[in-house]
Amino acid sequence: MLPSDLRNNIRRGDHNTHTSGVCQHYVQANLVVIPKEYAFDFLLFTIRNPKSCPIIEVLEAGQFESKYAEGSDIRTDIPLYHVYEHGQLTDKKHRIDDGWKDDFVSFLIGCSFTFESQLIKGGIPLRHIEENKNVAMYKTSIPTEKAGVFEGSTVVSMRPVPDALVQKAADITSLFPEMHGAPLHVGDPGEIGIDDITQPDFGDFVGIKDGETPMFWACGVTPQAVALQAKIPYMITHAPGHMFVTDWKNDEYLNGK
Amino acid sequence: MLPSDLRNNIRRGDHNTHTSGVCQHYVQANLVVIPKEYAFDFLLFTIRNPKSCPIIEVLEAGQFESKYAEGSDIRTDIPLYHVYEHGQLTDKKHRIDDGWKDDFVSFLIGCSFTFESQLIKGGIPLRHIEENKNVAMYKTSIPTEKAGVFEGSTVVSMRPVPDALVQKAADITSLFPEMHGAPLHVGDPGEIGIDDITQPDFGDFVGIKDGETPMFWACGVTPQAVALQAKIPYMITHAPGHMFVTDWKNDEYLNGK
Repeated sequence: MLPSDLRNNIRRGDHNTHTSGVCQHYVQANLVVIPKEYAFDFLLFTIRNPKSCPIIEVLEAGQFESKYAEGSDIRTDIPLYHVYEHGQLTDKKHRIDDGWKDDFVSFLIGCSFTFESQLIKGGIPLRHIEENKNVAMYKTSIPTEKAGVFEGSTVVSMRPVPDALVQKAADITSLFPEMHGAPLHVGDPGEIGIDDITQPDFGDFVGIKDGETPMFWACGVTPQAVALQAKIPYMITHAPGHMFVTDWKNDEYLNGK
Repeated sequence: MLPSDLRNNIRRGDHNTHTSGVCQHYVQANLVVIPKEYAFDFLLFTIRNPKSCPIIEVLEAGQFESKYAEGSDIRTDIPLYHVYEHGQLTDKKHRIDDGWKDDFVSFLIGCSFTFESQLIKGGIPLRHIEENKNVAMYKTSIPTEKAGVFEGSTVVSMRPVPDALVQKAADITSLFPEMHGAPLHVGDPGEIGIDDITQPDFGDFVGIKDGETPMFWACGVTPQAVALQAKIPYMITHAPGHMFVTDWKNDEYLNGK
């Protein structure tokens, strides 16, 4: 399916579930919408923390068409949105054009689906994908670099990798510094403040078998978590796993085209 | 001389001329100070135009110490400042701590002095330096990518390079994409909208001899020119050639350390 067809289906209400595994070769993006008043601090936060916040595109106040998706509307082309007020989830909506304000600034941020496509290509097995689950994500003790009202710790995603492939997985991902880049940590979860690896803060734990090592990468949920913690008055995001699908191919994005 | 000594001299009023050739191995920076209201648009402009606007550091509202210069104060450690109101130069000052406001956001932007140190190391003769002049700068027809109120054309710096060294100069500078990177144009000035190469918009023309080719690079004056054109109510910059000198070595900056 072409991303434009998917976006049309979503807009018509014909696709209202997650986008995992859909349009596999195209870049999917996290969405964060905040009032312009907070946009400078947030943009600065993403620049200071590029591993967890790889910015794909910034849509200026009031804009809603992505340049990477012709004819798109980020207010209607995502299957499910979360609305937060003062750090609390107050609503879940299938479209946000109703109630859209001219001072809303939108950020499209890189998503691990893009990143994982390269690992799979490199022969790294990813169990959460094999089992059709969400990747396990954890809050850590690794600080982010603060910007204005936005501060907090880094959220990481964890993937169990066969010991013999750990170096290869690190090498592959380090080739893409514009995406999440090299792992932040490999091995003992306690060293980065994760007390119980079986209890992720978000997503699903898929076990760590004998002969596997947990590998941790900076995660695109970090900016969302940090914005929630800042308790800004109003924020809209995509619902986890319900992403914005662009017309941009993963390969082109990762190679900087 | 150490940069910290230079900054102290400037602060005491003992050094009030340009900083060209001073503390040669250290990064010198352009300064742009604007009210926070315009900071998101300006930061977005720099991100969208990284070749002409290589950001070294953003000092959040009210901050005035650079993390690359311990004990520094960007309000007193530059020999001369320009104050612009609604796009007009209204004042020249040796310090700006008087009248400083808590909502002022400051941007330190890469300067061609850093860039030129690599060319000289690579054996490229730079006549404006040999003649102790300012580099020639021109407004062009090369558009920038707009962000909010900031839009306009790219300003380039021009250096005449012996024909046999043109490829080498291009190669050297392309190694530093975080600085101005590869040349934007080589050869005929008319192709980028420069009608009279002998009349630069800023700086000094040092001639183009037989056997030399004009090479054009994106210039750090671009963001200043664009901010002036936007006629924002208030802006402070360094006076041309009167830079902020950091404790950061050119080599470390260019190699991303």
